Amino acid sequence: LIPRREITGFRFDPEKDAAERYLRLQFFFETSKDPEWVAASFCAEQSTAQWSLPGSRDDLRPRHAAKLVSLRVVEEADRPLYDLPSTKGEKRFFRCLAEIAHPHENFGPRIANLLSAIAGEGVFYAPWVHTIQLLDVGFPELYLKNFQGPRYGIEGLRERLKVRDRPFFIGVVKPNIGLDPRRFSQLAERGLEGGLDIAKDDEMQADAPWSPLSERLRWAGEACRQASEKAGCPKMFIANITDEEEKVLENAQIAVKAGVGAVMINPLMTGFSSLRKVRREVSLPMMGHFTGMALWGRHPHYGVKSRVLTKLMRLCGCDLIGIAGFGKRMQTTAEEVLECIDACLQPLGPLLPALPIPGGGDWAATLSSVHSTIGHSNFGFIAGRGVFGHPDGPGAGALSIRQAWEACRQKISLGAYAETHPELKRAIEAFSLHEE
Amino acid sequence: LIPRREITGFRFDPEKDAAERYLRLQFFFETSKDPEWVAASFCAEQSTAQWSLPGSRDDLRPRHAAKLVSLRVVEEADRPLYDLPSTKGEKRFFRCLAEIAHPHENFGPRIANLLSAIAGEGVFYAPWVHTIQLLDVGFPELYLKNFQGPRYGIEGLRERLKVRDRPFFIGVVKPNIGLDPRRFSQLAERGLEGGLDIAKDDEMQADAPWSPLSERLRWAGEACRQASEKAGCPKMFIANITDEEEKVLENAQIAVKAGVGAVMINPLMTGFSSLRKVRREVSLPMMGHFTGMALWGRHPHYGVKSRVLTKLMRLCGCDLIGIAGFGKRMQTTAEEVLECIDACLQPLGPLLPALPIPGGGDWAATLSSVHSTIGHSNFGFIAGRGVFGHPDGPGAGALSIRQAWEACRQKISLGAYAETHPELKRAIEAFSLHEE
Repeated sequence: LIPRREITGFRFDPEKDAAERYLRLQFFFETSKDPEWVAASFCAEQSTAQWSLPGSRDDLRPRHAAKLVSLRVVEEADRPLYDLPSTKGEKRFFRCLAEIAHPHENFGPRIANLLSAIAGEGVFYAPWVHTIQLLDVGFPELYLKNFQGPRYGIEGLRERLKVRDRPFFIGVVKPNIGLDPRRFSQLAERGLEGGLDIAKDDEMQADAPWSPLSERLRWAGEACRQASEKAGCPKMFIANITDEEEKVLENAQIAVKAGVGAVMINPLMTGFSSLRKVRREVSLPMMGHFTGMALWGRHPHYGVKSRVLTKLMRLCGCDLIGIAGFGKRMQTTAEEVLECIDACLQPLGPLLPALPIPGGGDWAATLSSVHSTIGHSNFGFIAGRGVFGHPDGPGAGALSIRQAWEACRQKISLGAYAETHPELKRAIEAFSLHEE
Repeated sequence: LIPRREITGFRFDPEKDAAERYLRLQFFFETSKDPEWVAASFCAEQSTAQWSLPGSRDDLRPRHAAKLVSLRVVEEADRPLYDLPSTKGEKRFFRCLAEIAHPHENFGPRIANLLSAIAGEGVFYAPWVHTIQLLDVGFPELYLKNFQGPRYGIEGLRERLKVRDRPFFIGVVKPNIGLDPRRFSQLAERGLEGGLDIAKDDEMQADAPWSPLSERLRWAGEACRQASEKAGCPKMFIANITDEEEKVLENAQIAVKAGVGAVMINPLMTGFSSLRKVRREVSLPMMGHFTGMALWGRHPHYGVKSRVLTKLMRLCGCDLIGIAGFGKRMQTTAEEVLECIDACLQPLGPLLPALPIPGGGDWAATLSSVHSTIGHSNFGFIAGRGVFGHPDGPGAGALSIRQAWEACRQKISLGAYAETHPELKRAIEAFSLHEE
């Protein structure tokens, strides 16, 4: 902990500290010491650390310190939230919400450096903090102007795919691993013909020996063209271009050449830079996938909340953002899914909204509740096995989802609608068995 | 969960499954269902998922499935390890260790794709798994041969810096943020003259307006040359080149030109690709910093163990690897620190060992216990404020550490040795106050 007399040097002063110089960080933390002291130390750790030089009178805090805007003890307890090495022998636990103003000049508009400051060693090894969670980040316009945000946004995607007044219907081609490019793309084509707007690679799909990226995308591009022609409306394939970072841009250019409609990156695994590079250099819509988010934020009181990572994907140019979806399958509360959806849709300076795609375990029968929980149609409804595991093939799988949407739109019960729609009926027979 | 009859399709068969095609993953998990069923489903989720195509007899599992090698229920309990959404209403909790063989062909020698498979959605959203931790990864030679590993390794560093039969002494220049390049580098120079082998940037140091990287490194290179000349032995400065990924290589080339001795990257924030690129293109020693590791693995039963990430840094070419160190400050058990040290030092195919640098809160007085806990001298001893916060300046701070080493080597108590060594005495007076 910093010496107690230093606490006041880490208080935000709205008179002197210009708001546009700071990100606003919302933290939850638990400590057994004086919360204000701990919060001030925590500000020091994530910014100036040792803020003066022995023998010098310079004070680096006015310009460089992270500063405490507000602090509230929301709960006191005699047991810790988690048994961790630091909680041993402690008797009192203060649970706190803190707002911290962090000067963005310290790291600049670079995500790797931003994360090193707001989600790095200074935060997660802060002294006397047992558990800590970064709940949210607010960005001033001065910082946002360094980021391009989505190139197309939701309206651009609606325009491109001629999808109006309904969710986008998306299918993840399965089996995701092991099929040759031609068979794989035939599946995508069947799904698109059946009623998907978008077919896509799984996030584990790589540039593999049995399915080299350039060959897979050549076939997938052809599948899009065929399906568009048959359906009489535009169709899209999203290619996973996640790879060693120096290959990502090359992969994106392969996607452009092949005429698939969009690309996807797993930014928590590649680093966020690859999103920015593709956003800058390639004019295709881009999707960011959430893989890794559970690792950063599964625990209710630890880590980095998924909405923070969702916002960063939007800053870095994602038009579509995959997030963990509703229901028991994804072990994510509805509240958290809705926070991520907000992170895609709520105003964020001049940046366009991104299309949220909550997913995991969805199929025809879950569409109605996903739609009613979200409360509008600005989302992508995504299924994997729900389309490609349909016993009558991906065309029927895609159709079962369109039928579910019709039932939902006409406010008819799914069971009743299925009586006259065999694809939906077969989906219910096939997939209800796996529900718990 | 997969249908129960499919369990057998996810068992590893040492007769048929060639060992060199598989990574060996050690997992801990907790479930309330039949552990073998859950483990098989878990294998499916992280690899083939839907492994057959409706209407086709092809079985993708022999080549592409992750497979269960062994499973052991180590504990049964009536309370979960963590209260998470999935544990609600459950009564029995089986805690299991599973070894899984994962075919590396599925993702290839690409870290972003590897992590998407072994630490991604398939793992952390596996059905009926309440909590899960990736404990360790074993790599066959066939996979390792894709990675260069450290260029210099420990012996190369000892050769370069003429450091024999003792730990390397390393100082993180503080204040880390806010000093102009010249003053910053003067501090580094004082520390190197005083007895550090290596001075380095903090992991939060960026290419900042008040300290542009090229200027800071020009001064830091000069500081190394001056200090080497005065001390009569080689000295090194490690430059943090963490940045947007496309700048990392450019930054490394600035470091080469400036004549600083080494570079550092925060790979959990940039992505591991930047390590590999710098390893390939730049002939300086490279350090990987652990910032972000707590986020991936602070919890004792969740996430990815730090030794896994440490190994990946070694694969990708780090000669020096920063890890969270001993003592209460870093909230890391001694066992975990030692596991990371092993990940640096233990045989790993043809790859050289990397120098482990456990750190956080260390200063002269902690050297002896760090050394005796590790049991040998193949490590870097690192201090920030312990050198640069010394009341008589960084020269005295560095000297206090060399004195502590002499006391340790001669088996004299620190207090007794301090009586005749004023720098050590002053360090004890200044820093013991902050100890708890």
